[in-house]
Amino acid sequence: MVLKYTAFKYAPIMVFQLILMVLYFIFVRYGGAAEVNVKGFEGTHVMIFIGFGFLMTFLKKYCYSALGFNWLIAAMVIQWALLCQSFYHMKDNTIFVTKKSLLEADIMSATVLITFGALLGIASGLQLLFIAIVETAVACLNLWLVSDVFKASDVGGSIAIHTFGAYFGIGVSMALRSRGEDTTTPTTNGHHVTSVNLNGPTYVSDVTAMIGSIFLWIYWPSFNSGLTTTDAEYQRAVVNTYLSLAAATVTTFVLSAGVNKYPGRFDMVHIQNSTLAGGVAVGSVCNMHIGAGGAIAVGIGAGVISVIGYRFLTPKLAKIGILDTCGVNNLHGMPGVYSGLLSILFAAMVTNEEYGTEMGTVFQAMSKDTDGRTAGSQALYQFIALAVTLGVSLVSGFITGLMSKLSMFESLKIAERYDDEVNWELP
Amino acid sequence: MVLKYTAFKYAPIMVFQLILMVLYFIFVRYGGAAEVNVKGFEGTHVMIFIGFGFLMTFLKKYCYSALGFNWLIAAMVIQWALLCQSFYHMKDNTIFVTKKSLLEADIMSATVLITFGALLGIASGLQLLFIAIVETAVACLNLWLVSDVFKASDVGGSIAIHTFGAYFGIGVSMALRSRGEDTTTPTTNGHHVTSVNLNGPTYVSDVTAMIGSIFLWIYWPSFNSGLTTTDAEYQRAVVNTYLSLAAATVTTFVLSAGVNKYPGRFDMVHIQNSTLAGGVAVGSVCNMHIGAGGAIAVGIGAGVISVIGYRFLTPKLAKIGILDTCGVNNLHGMPGVYSGLLSILFAAMVTNEEYGTEMGTVFQAMSKDTDGRTAGSQALYQFIALAVTLGVSLVSGFITGLMSKLSMFESLKIAERYDDEVNWELP
Amino acid sequence: MVLKYTAFKYAPIMVFQLILMVLYFIFVRYGGAAEVNVKGFEGTHVMIFIGFGFLMTFLKKYCYSALGFNWLIAAMVIQWALLCQSFYHMKDNTIFVTKKSLLEADIMSATVLITFGALLGIASGLQLLFIAIVETAVACLNLWLVSDVFKASDVGGSIAIHTFGAYFGIGVSMALRSRGEDTTTPTTNGHHVTSVNLNGPTYVSDVTAMIGSIFLWIYWPSFNSGLTTTDAEYQRAVVNTYLSLAAATVTTFVLSAGVNKYPGRFDMVHIQNSTLAGGVAVGSVCNMHIGAGGAIAVGIGAGVISVIGYRFLTPKLAKIGILDTCGVNNLHGMPGVYSGLLSILFAAMVTNEEYGTEMGTVFQAMSKDTDGRTAGSQALYQFIALAVTLGVSLVSGFITGLMSKLSMFESLKIAERYDDEVNWELP
Repeated sequence: MVLKYTAFKYAPIMVFQLILMVLYFIFVRYGGAAEVNVKGFEGTHVMIFIGFGFLMTFLKKYCYSALGFNWLIAAMVIQWALLCQSFYHMKDNTIFVTKKSLLEADIMSATVLITFGALLGIASGLQLLFIAIVETAVACLNLWLVSDVFKASDVGGSIAIHTFGAYFGIGVSMALRSRGEDTTTPTTNGHHVTSVNLNGPTYVSDVTAMIGSIFLWIYWPSFNSGLTTTDAEYQRAVVNTYLSLAAATVTTFVLSAGVNKYPGRFDMVHIQNSTLAGGVAVGSVCNMHIGAGGAIAVGIGAGVISVIGYRFLTPKLAKIGILDTCGVNNLHGMPGVYSGLLSILFAAMVTNEEYGTEMGTVFQAMSKDTDGRTAGSQALYQFIALAVTLGVSLVSGFITGLMSKLSMFESLKIAERYDDEVNWELP
Repeated sequence: MVLKYTAFKYAPIMVFQLILMVLYFIFVRYGGAAEVNVKGFEGTHVMIFIGFGFLMTFLKKYCYSALGFNWLIAAMVIQWALLCQSFYHMKDNTIFVTKKSLLEADIMSATVLITFGALLGIASGLQLLFIAIVETAVACLNLWLVSDVFKASDVGGSIAIHTFGAYFGIGVSMALRSRGEDTTTPTTNGHHVTSVNLNGPTYVSDVTAMIGSIFLWIYWPSFNSGLTTTDAEYQRAVVNTYLSLAAATVTTFVLSAGVNKYPGRFDMVHIQNSTLAGGVAVGSVCNMHIGAGGAIAVGIGAGVISVIGYRFLTPKLAKIGILDTCGVNNLHGMPGVYSGLLSILFAAMVTNEEYGTEMGTVFQAMSKDTDGRTAGSQALYQFIALAVTLGVSLVSGFITGLMSKLSMFESLKIAERYDDEVNWELP
Repeated sequence: MVLKYTAFKYAPIMVFQLILMVLYFIFVRYGGAAEVNVKGFEGTHVMIFIGFGFLMTFLKKYCYSALGFNWLIAAMVIQWALLCQSFYHMKDNTIFVTKKSLLEADIMSATVLITFGALLGIASGLQLLFIAIVETAVACLNLWLVSDVFKASDVGGSIAIHTFGAYFGIGVSMALRSRGEDTTTPTTNGHHVTSVNLNGPTYVSDVTAMIGSIFLWIYWPSFNSGLTTTDAEYQRAVVNTYLSLAAATVTTFVLSAGVNKYPGRFDMVHIQNSTLAGGVAVGSVCNMHIGAGGAIAVGIGAGVISVIGYRFLTPKLAKIGILDTCGVNNLHGMPGVYSGLLSILFAAMVTNEEYGTEMGTVFQAMSKDTDGRTAGSQALYQFIALAVTLGVSLVSGFITGLMSKLSMFESLKIAERYDDEVNWELP
């Protein structure tokens, strides 16, 4: 079954859209308006569609696909995620949709778009859409484990969204890896060189990518604070994320000039991405009493991890055939794990007297759910949440990647990579 | 009187600006701050100036004019619309301006910018400004008829804003039509080919157009919900618009690849525009109890109507000389009419017991104004509102178009079309 | 000490970042959440990072540096400004950070970015960072004088932010002035011509600059109203800024076509910049009862001052060696002084009976602080605030500029100006 250049190529997606419609007719009703003033929706919405979309326009001849697939995938996933997430909280077989549901669906779509970043230009449209549908279901299951079963603290989603999305993507990439073909020399940026060398930016594409990068940076405090519950918790999440991002940005610039093979000059790949690592790194702990100085320290660490990853780790992974076009391992993966580790650390530092109170503890966010837990057992649950997320994402990503190699999903040939020509009528 | 390359070319616009100032000094006072937390203002503001502006940068050599005239027209129209709209609600010859007035002025300016989309590159600056001034006055009159006289439900403005703007533009375009000159073959996109072939995009101009397109998409829920009154109604408007847009987006991608003359590849014109039709189509009914599944169904229909229009209808209209550069008939016109028809349908479906109550009806939005109406008569008024809007917009657009052909407005020659050179000092 | 192409070039900035971290650990604590719903934060955040950043991408080969240094400088300055500003309001040697503190830090960073605009492409990275650190400290001192000592009314920061930033930049530029080298003919835009002529736009760079310009315009009402205290004052600030911007925009277009050396055509430099002067000009008085007509009049004046400045004054200043790449004197400097003069005028026009009451006066914003002042003495304090700001900014800018010529800051050679090559690894 080869659909590549037939009119019915995306017909299965239309069938999926119609199934979604039917499921909505059956299961979804309007919820009450109690949480209608949920914070962070508009900003997160900009991050998903402008932020992720434009960040991925850095490739010279893949801008249409970056913007287009980002939009198509997100538009499909937000509908699907709303069902999958709410599945675990249904009452009388009914899902009640509110503005907060939309925010949660947006946040979940970030997971899939992070995975898309790893596969940018190397997976076909049908592969991406298949992967998105499977990943959403698995990621919602994992989110339920993290937040409802383990009751881990992860308000900004660094564990359940960023870490999951990145390592699911790395898992897929490992499965798509093919012998013999990926031995060309990667560029300094960690970009892989194809025969026609489309895996790189132009001057203008790097500028349009900055639209995405800066909007992601701007609204990251909204993203991390969107699901907080009290004003004090909300304000801590905003302040900590703002400071962590600022410190990561300064660190990224300094270090980028420091490790560049042209010393003293900045590398746009770092600037577009590692600046954002401060938002990921603080995600799991941003609502806690980590202190303003602590937030800055977290951001500095994030900048270091991310730039070092782009400069030294991505090229090594590319050499062994694990492609990661946007370097999501450096922006979402390692900073996400770092955030998870910080959440373990902060849980372990709390005294049992402080645990469960607001001003005295770091874990007030969970105080109402903590059925007899101690600070120590909370630290353990944070660890379990992180470990399970890593395991589930890598394994399910690898399996999904293998399935996506079925001929019906029309894998790209090497010469078709990073090329809009395959997907678009071009001017 | 030929002003084209004289310093005083736009002097009449300065006179108009000074008249506006005097009218504001005489009639306008600060209103009370009761509605200062009106929702949707900031998002709508982004749609008007970034959304419409950048969406129209898809032409290769008309980006400056698209952005410039969008800004100039909107800056003039918001001042003028605030007076024209408030004229019908003056108390003691005084207009009270509030933040809500600004939102309403922004929304009205969308009407004129939709018309600009039809005329993009084919009308001169003076023609555009003349048309904008006339259209604002007529559109405000029509809006008053729709909302105050017929008391039609049209919270997202699909009838009074989108349908009006599109068919006013088509009316002007019919008047500007000239014999013999428009018989060249239109391109697949429905773009018209001029001698120098400026009516088309470059790779980069299509990317900058996506800035506009995606921001319009992002804030459309704000636009449609901006004038709702209760939290429950607001939330329904946001949820329905969000879902309709998502479904229209998926449908647009699938169908674009389906009907393309290169089957299986997407056409950027559809992606930039038809994705948004879901926001227009749900506009008149988004605050009603149409159900989440209903919202998705509306969006699917919108995607179908819009893509089919771009692919098959626009080229046919161009052949008979009716130019519509942005295809506003497919994005705002037909989806607007479709939304109007849906509002008739939903009104007709309500039982008389339900009519006028909140949870039981779809028309709660008007319950306070409905002086003895039944659901059936409401359906009739929805029909009248749509029919009057269509008639008034087409006829007044046509007349305005004829007037704009006066030599003082300096019509463009064919060779001057789609060209920034006429209006700008270029690098 | 020449660091230009060494890995340790920006190491002093990392040291500064670490010092900031330590200061935050020692002095900063989370504040109460009473003002957590502060208006204008998100919009101002977009202005600082997207607005200023993209506005400065108009140069053909300085887009990376414009975006990069804008981001780096702002990320560093917001951390530093939060400390410097709060220094004057510390309690028990503790700074309490709230969401409002973040807004104030963002606003302060605008000062430094305005200065950056004057120096765009003519100062090295190390010079810019050194200047930013010094300027922030001095500007926070000046802000304290204006608002706490003189108790001047300046809610939108036209005196303490815009005027200060512009004339600090002019002061630096005067210090950087060098004999003999700047006598080449400036272009019509007031841009200075270098040997390789990099001081000018391309078609695309002017389009990306419009992203910045329009976002600044859109969120300016948020910026000016962010620090208002009552709903009525907030609404006046939004309404007045909106109207002033609209009127300045219409005026700018008309006048740009009027004074252009190609009469009847617009100059993109004016459109990108003078349109915004309406926001600056109304800043100091936007919360007052200036009336809707008054706001429009203010905006018209701003457009005139700014376009005339770009067309006739900037080239004259360039001839005597005072470079101002973005023309911040015309966008922030003169319109800021104009706003300060308006604040004196409005203070002088108030009767003593009106002074200190809400609806009857223009100066209600300060009524609680006005220890026995009369309207006349308030006018005097407004004058003192403006005069002190002008003096402090010019003198401290000049001294900072002289210091930045030390060899350790690596001044650019003429041939290195306006060129990303110095700072970036380019594609």
